Amino acid sequence: MAPLTAQQDNFPQWYQDVLTKAKLAENGPSRGTMVIRPNGYALWERMQAEVDQRIKSAGAHNAYFPLFIPMSYFEREAEHVEGFSPELAVVTHGGGKELNESLAIRPTSETVIGEYMAKWIDSYRDLPLLLNQWANVVRWELRPRIFLRTTEFLWQEGHTAHSSEADARDYAVTILRDVYEDFMRNVLALPVIVGRKTPKERFAGAQNTMTCEGIMRDGKALQMGTSHELGQNFSRAFNIKYSPADGSPELCWTTSWGSSTRMVGGLIMGHGDDKGLVVPPALAPIQVAVVVVKDNDGAVTQVAKKLTQDLMARGLRAKLDDNLAQAFGWRATDWDLQGVPVRIEIGPRDLAEDSAAIFRRDTQSKERVTLDSVADQAQRLMTTIQADMLAAATARRDALITDCTTLDEVREVAQTGIARMPWASVGTAGEQELATSGVTVRCLQRRDGSLPEADDDPAAVAYLGRAY
Amino acid sequence: MAPLTAQQDNFPQWYQDVLTKAKLAENGPSRGTMVIRPNGYALWERMQAEVDQRIKSAGAHNAYFPLFIPMSYFEREAEHVEGFSPELAVVTHGGGKELNESLAIRPTSETVIGEYMAKWIDSYRDLPLLLNQWANVVRWELRPRIFLRTTEFLWQEGHTAHSSEADARDYAVTILRDVYEDFMRNVLALPVIVGRKTPKERFAGAQNTMTCEGIMRDGKALQMGTSHELGQNFSRAFNIKYSPADGSPELCWTTSWGSSTRMVGGLIMGHGDDKGLVVPPALAPIQVAVVVVKDNDGAVTQVAKKLTQDLMARGLRAKLDDNLAQAFGWRATDWDLQGVPVRIEIGPRDLAEDSAAIFRRDTQSKERVTLDSVADQAQRLMTTIQADMLAAATARRDALITDCTTLDEVREVAQTGIARMPWASVGTAGEQELATSGVTVRCLQRRDGSLPEADDDPAAVAYLGRAY
Repeated sequence: MAPLTAQQDNFPQWYQDVLTKAKLAENGPSRGTMVIRPNGYALWERMQAEVDQRIKSAGAHNAYFPLFIPMSYFEREAEHVEGFSPELAVVTHGGGKELNESLAIRPTSETVIGEYMAKWIDSYRDLPLLLNQWANVVRWELRPRIFLRTTEFLWQEGHTAHSSEADARDYAVTILRDVYEDFMRNVLALPVIVGRKTPKERFAGAQNTMTCEGIMRDGKALQMGTSHELGQNFSRAFNIKYSPADGSPELCWTTSWGSSTRMVGGLIMGHGDDKGLVVPPALAPIQVAVVVVKDNDGAVTQVAKKLTQDLMARGLRAKLDDNLAQAFGWRATDWDLQGVPVRIEIGPRDLAEDSAAIFRRDTQSKERVTLDSVADQAQRLMTTIQADMLAAATARRDALITDCTTLDEVREVAQTGIARMPWASVGTAGEQELATSGVTVRCLQRRDGSLPEADDDPAAVAYLGRAY
Repeated sequence: MAPLTAQQDNFPQWYQDVLTKAKLAENGPSRGTMVIRPNGYALWERMQAEVDQRIKSAGAHNAYFPLFIPMSYFEREAEHVEGFSPELAVVTHGGGKELNESLAIRPTSETVIGEYMAKWIDSYRDLPLLLNQWANVVRWELRPRIFLRTTEFLWQEGHTAHSSEADARDYAVTILRDVYEDFMRNVLALPVIVGRKTPKERFAGAQNTMTCEGIMRDGKALQMGTSHELGQNFSRAFNIKYSPADGSPELCWTTSWGSSTRMVGGLIMGHGDDKGLVVPPALAPIQVAVVVVKDNDGAVTQVAKKLTQDLMARGLRAKLDDNLAQAFGWRATDWDLQGVPVRIEIGPRDLAEDSAAIFRRDTQSKERVTLDSVADQAQRLMTTIQADMLAAATARRDALITDCTTLDEVREVAQTGIARMPWASVGTAGEQELATSGVTVRCLQRRDGSLPEADDDPAAVAYLGRAY
């Protein structure tokens, strides 16, 4: 197997090589679509499970709304239709006939869900209404890139309605912090920068968009999850009203929030190295590969099988590799490529010496331990590797961030990393100017890491860079 | 809350009432689509988890293929295009422009997956290739009905490739028996009739379709899951070839199989009664509701909360209902409507007597037990109710089946139930004739319950009836 392109030589080609050689995904038959292969889907399934659990803990319930949205729905919210209509895929024919009203394929579901919220909400007792759905969405992409920007992608989209602006804001922040940031830091081991978007970068129809921005190994940013305060824009457009305990009906305050298969791209580019993927233990579909190096009489395989069962009994996701028809070197390279956190290697000589080799994918260090301690050691490494990967990613991120005082400096820094500068010094004029060189404000954050509560918060610092 | 229409008075209206009052699902904005509400989606999520686990045990891996399929793909398999083209939804515009080639929205994915199987399969070592995807599909429906027949529905579709016809057949049967039948009998508590479809009822492009047919309480059949041997039809159309250990490349043998949100309809109509849903414990999203009847000083609520935690610690899916703002009667009716298998009711008097009432939804029987034995009792009831529901459904099914000797008898029986008659006595001529009265052959089965291996198996018995 030819080695991957080195990251330093050509990062985009390295990314493409990983997708292909690790059999994660490839282009679909129609432009901009993707086929997610089993190795890639296993990563997404684990992400779904972890995010879904956090969404449920935050009190939201899963539901499912139709793929098709009547075009007229989009037109009810002016900014929303302006933002999304250039990206719509449109169904004009069904069942062999031309349709009376064309149907948009959902690019996001605020409109259709708004219509049903209006039906379902009657009194204050029905609030908050907290909904989520796992679904595919379609946005026509001019520059598609697998996992990062595809015409069709998979995601979850949450939609909630509240009786007050404060309650809606609190919930949008809860999702941002307790669902997205928590998942990204503690499962993906990615130290995302959490902040507020500038008005220019806001979701079409929102009054505030908050984001988790991941910093990739090439110094570019990736928007990995967003949470929006929609104010009363959609409740006005769809007449989402509730009756308070006393008084006449009032408009609700709504939120929406989403995270997608794009996170798979973030995992690849946030941790991957020249040998392939590096997957943190908390996410890894396979946490430990138990590899039979060689076997003459079946004795090694038997020990390896028993060890695999022992690891599984401890709750680890372990897999036996006794595929002796393939050379050991080839298999080791492939486990590296897949980014499996820990590999345990056993051959006849190890067995004779009552030992095994235990290999860490993140540091690429190998250690010899006794056979009867190897399962303990593997289990301990899960915690260690998880913590070390976050620490390493944090150090890389911090090394990529440079404080700047002029727009020229920002432009220079953004060639290879992320610039940080007081938002007041950038301003909307500076933001416009930088956009011409492909540099955008990724988010605004206060010095202490907290979220600015207004567009012009004087304590806000801007993170600027190029983005996927 | 007005009671449900009685099943006997108007079964279709009863079904619609259950959907609405239990807040399971409702019509979407465009014709034939549906909105699955949280109560309905919770049932589907549990189905997904159980089916997915069985699919993985059968060795298949999840993947994801695009929603959009180029129209030209359909045209490669003659029967397939003939069967599906009248049902297609077609995207003609994307990103504000008319497309060069129109895109079909997948009604099923044999064609697009066939295209990729051909790329991925090289040698016999790549076989069997066992893939599955969870996805939405669209088939234009003229007579839509929520969960049973909707333009868009959710399903899993499996697609596999094998090196021999025997291997493909074995796998198609494994899915039918170990995934679908096992799930439907042992989780849904529905004693489905497993059989072979006649050529007339086959999937478009298959050489053999096998099915699990559920018998609903009104005597109509519901096709709840199908597994197809596709022979070499699709491998020929998409050039899916493998190199054997020696010799020149050969065509693969493929299968496909699917089960969908239709199963939610089967659950409702297979077990439901005049009070609403009746959900078997193995499926139930909530297995035990712990209901505070009344409370004066918080003491009852405290005991109920502790009991709920105890039940959850035992691995039961339990939920506390301490919603004292609503009358007890209203809440009890609602738990009945949702079909929660066991309800434990505690009020101040129960507490004083150190007892609780435990209620079984399936038999509607109530028993008083001591407080310290109620958790044990609830746990035991899970197994009892599951077995009793299967037994009751089997008795109902068997009472609905009548052996017939003439087509006139079949027509008569099919007014209210299922007819059984030797397939040789029905024949394709009889099948055609019955079709004019809306009666179809649901499946063929041998007397001993085994699957006929040919269309003209002389031991085959036909199950005939009306179907959803």
